[in-house]
Amino acid sequence: MTHTVVVAGVGPGLGASLARRFAAEGCDVGLLARTASFVEGLASDIGADVAGDAVAAPADITDREAVADAFATVREAFGPVDVLVNHASGATWDGADVDPADFRRSLEIGPVGSLHCTQEALADMRPESGNDADDDTDTPSETRGTVIFTGATSAVRGRDGALGFSAAKFAVRGMAESLARELGPEGVHVAHVVIDGGIATPAALEAGADPDELLDPDAIADSYWHLVEQDRSSWTLELDLRPHVEDF
Amino acid sequence: MTHTVVVAGVGPGLGASLARRFAAEGCDVGLLARTASFVEGLASDIGADVAGDAVAAPADITDREAVADAFATVREAFGPVDVLVNHASGATWDGADVDPADFRRSLEIGPVGSLHCTQEALADMRPESGNDADDDTDTPSETRGTVIFTGATSAVRGRDGALGFSAAKFAVRGMAESLARELGPEGVHVAHVVIDGGIATPAALEAGADPDELLDPDAIADSYWHLVEQDRSSWTLELDLRPHVEDF
Amino acid sequence: MTHTVVVAGVGPGLGASLARRFAAEGCDVGLLARTASFVEGLASDIGADVAGDAVAAPADITDREAVADAFATVREAFGPVDVLVNHASGATWDGADVDPADFRRSLEIGPVGSLHCTQEALADMRPESGNDADDDTDTPSETRGTVIFTGATSAVRGRDGALGFSAAKFAVRGMAESLARELGPEGVHVAHVVIDGGIATPAALEAGADPDELLDPDAIADSYWHLVEQDRSSWTLELDLRPHVEDF
Amino acid sequence: MTHTVVVAGVGPGLGASLARRFAAEGCDVGLLARTASFVEGLASDIGADVAGDAVAAPADITDREAVADAFATVREAFGPVDVLVNHASGATWDGADVDPADFRRSLEIGPVGSLHCTQEALADMRPESGNDADDDTDTPSETRGTVIFTGATSAVRGRDGALGFSAAKFAVRGMAESLARELGPEGVHVAHVVIDGGIATPAALEAGADPDELLDPDAIADSYWHLVEQDRSSWTLELDLRPHVEDF
Repeated sequence: MTHTVVVAGVGPGLGASLARRFAAEGCDVGLLARTASFVEGLASDIGADVAGDAVAAPADITDREAVADAFATVREAFGPVDVLVNHASGATWDGADVDPADFRRSLEIGPVGSLHCTQEALADMRPESGNDADDDTDTPSETRGTVIFTGATSAVRGRDGALGFSAAKFAVRGMAESLARELGPEGVHVAHVVIDGGIATPAALEAGADPDELLDPDAIADSYWHLVEQDRSSWTLELDLRPHVEDF
Repeated sequence: MTHTVVVAGVGPGLGASLARRFAAEGCDVGLLARTASFVEGLASDIGADVAGDAVAAPADITDREAVADAFATVREAFGPVDVLVNHASGATWDGADVDPADFRRSLEIGPVGSLHCTQEALADMRPESGNDADDDTDTPSETRGTVIFTGATSAVRGRDGALGFSAAKFAVRGMAESLARELGPEGVHVAHVVIDGGIATPAALEAGADPDELLDPDAIADSYWHLVEQDRSSWTLELDLRPHVEDF
Repeated sequence: MTHTVVVAGVGPGLGASLARRFAAEGCDVGLLARTASFVEGLASDIGADVAGDAVAAPADITDREAVADAFATVREAFGPVDVLVNHASGATWDGADVDPADFRRSLEIGPVGSLHCTQEALADMRPESGNDADDDTDTPSETRGTVIFTGATSAVRGRDGALGFSAAKFAVRGMAESLARELGPEGVHVAHVVIDGGIATPAALEAGADPDELLDPDAIADSYWHLVEQDRSSWTLELDLRPHVEDF
Repeated sequence: MTHTVVVAGVGPGLGASLARRFAAEGCDVGLLARTASFVEGLASDIGADVAGDAVAAPADITDREAVADAFATVREAFGPVDVLVNHASGATWDGADVDPADFRRSLEIGPVGSLHCTQEALADMRPESGNDADDDTDTPSETRGTVIFTGATSAVRGRDGALGFSAAKFAVRGMAESLARELGPEGVHVAHVVIDGGIATPAALEAGADPDELLDPDAIADSYWHLVEQDRSSWTLELDLRPHVEDF
């Protein structure tokens, strides 16, 4: 089965690997990020290579209207969205002395941005919702969508010196748990992936990091794809991923 | 030993019990909440009864400057603050369809408001910090302050149909963990209390709830006071509290 | 890549599905359980159908020598074992009044039995270990084995009225975490699967359970197989699995 | 209110501090440990000093009959037991290569020994239980007893190279959770204390450890006493304790 996927917060590291992997599986992928030139470049890259297709959908995810426009672009290209990856995150590495504006920005990009994208995706996954709640009582006969949140160790263990990041990542995990309980019976699979370790992004590798100590983004993408493929009788809410040598 | 305490987000239920309990132990208490008339009434009530004293410090905790003014009021009355209870929380009970404005408001009252109060309290607990970081290397010889966050079950288990509340409560727990790791070695005790169950507030009792199935706010206050009294050799980061009949 | 697998504690439900799935992927599977007639029947069933092969290895897993003999049988048939599923569990559903003999039996089948099987499997996965510890410093160039523990909700949340089961399931989870940290750097992947809900075993279906509310054992097997296939750069220690309608 | 307490697995470190603290609060304390000479010496020490009294109750806690005899000794001296501290633990520090006999011994001392003591204590706390279950439906009007389990970091995070210890400590935590859910409504408070760090035992101090980096056993005892004193409207199931400088 093919899917229409939105990767929100796509960048040159894991986000790009996720987009490529979904496209390689034959999915059509909407690339949502703030920088239009980046997502346009990635979309044409992907389009040339694989079974699926990709479209650039530039947007600032902290802006509800911009997110609506971006989803409209994806829907116009490929139809209703049934897979969303909430992948954006942003944080300064500050502790108790963090500038409140920076702290707020972490919350805007993480929990608020994820809310915006999730609401747009759910409009496709649950088209009847909101129109007439009373009609919404039937259990669907199959999975109607998948929403995956990218988490981090700091989502399960508050990090010394990263107050805004810890707050945002915990908040997103709480959202995933709340949504999983609300949406599961309606046929929408919600999952949270705890990435524990550094990712072998182009930047990390250029900086000289040892690839054996990093998570390979293509390997991470295997587990995201597995989550999308899970039968609704046996859904995962949370899994962790880390390099075999990680000290944890 | 006596303390100067700020209870931020004090209301007629647990917040008032905490303030009374601290005052009964001889502490001076700053009552920080948005409604001036409420905190003024509570302050004169408390002042008449007990060993400690109380002062009203009305402020909207989402406003950094208003919080600074409120702390100035407390300092002027009682001197530097060494105990802070981050007790404010606010949320609509909405799920995936929550209005983004309400969702943001949950984050403003919980994590952002807590940040504002914590930064003001830390200015008293760590007076040297920020002036010259290099001087800040000595381990203090004793506890310099206590910061307690009031949490809920929804801080450890995302709640179906309470998306903003789950996000805010998770975020606050992440803040407590991050701050505990950062500030412990500097002599500041950070703790998070998971309140699991309904509290026997005046409103709950009037509505006819069975008091045997509720947490008695005075009993909760015992555990907050225990946290303040703990020796720094054996600090608690997190404890849960629930009625003996609670199904959990 | 093919594997030699031992499923320890294989029964007619999930254990049999796991064995069939591994065989369908081309693996050779040792079927370890107490009842010789059951594993012999299952082995001939599997042998007739699929790419891989199966051998019966009857043993009482609480008996260290019997486990050694069973692994010898598997090795003789298929060579060194590189995948182990610790699937056995046994418990009476008793609370505080549990007979201590029944409580001990839960610990024997769960943690002790898992230890016996894990030690045998590790003798194949880490052949040099024990001979000369000093030689064992090289990081292997690839995964040398996978050990999966089947867990339950009662492994993460102690269950009212199931004292021995809770003790055994928590113990096994502690073992998985301890072993993951010890063995990961040596190239052995250790994982723990939290199965949250009833499984659609033949017995459950005959008893009239609604299959839509149960975990399909073949769907569970998909996730076990995913764990075996994970690249060592991105290993999962723990994932949960539950039906989409599960109330949790 | 005074109590009759059993400290099971009392030794010269935290166990002795707990016994002394309970006695100082006016409680009568039964000292249960394997070495008769040690508990006899401690009992006469305590008896000379404080409000409460102490009696030696030597027993091997892995032996159900010996535990029954030890509780009989305590009952004869002081009457029914209403506070139990399950404090015994024993483990070799071995990883995957642990001798199965040593692994079993960890389970015998931790979970099995705790079960033995808990069952004896519950016979006093719930005297009607077992005679006629149908009579046992009344909710008691007050707390009927407290059972505290001493845990460790390895109860919540499996430890590399400590397989038996991790299994035993996880098991005990699972027991505490299971028992809390079963016994809370009957008026028995069950709690689990996660001690995270080294304790300033006589042996640790003699070995030259820095007391500022260790948990003071008297400070730990403060929190155990707080658990005993908690009102049943606001019971704690779990709290952690660690030195302010602990890296965690």
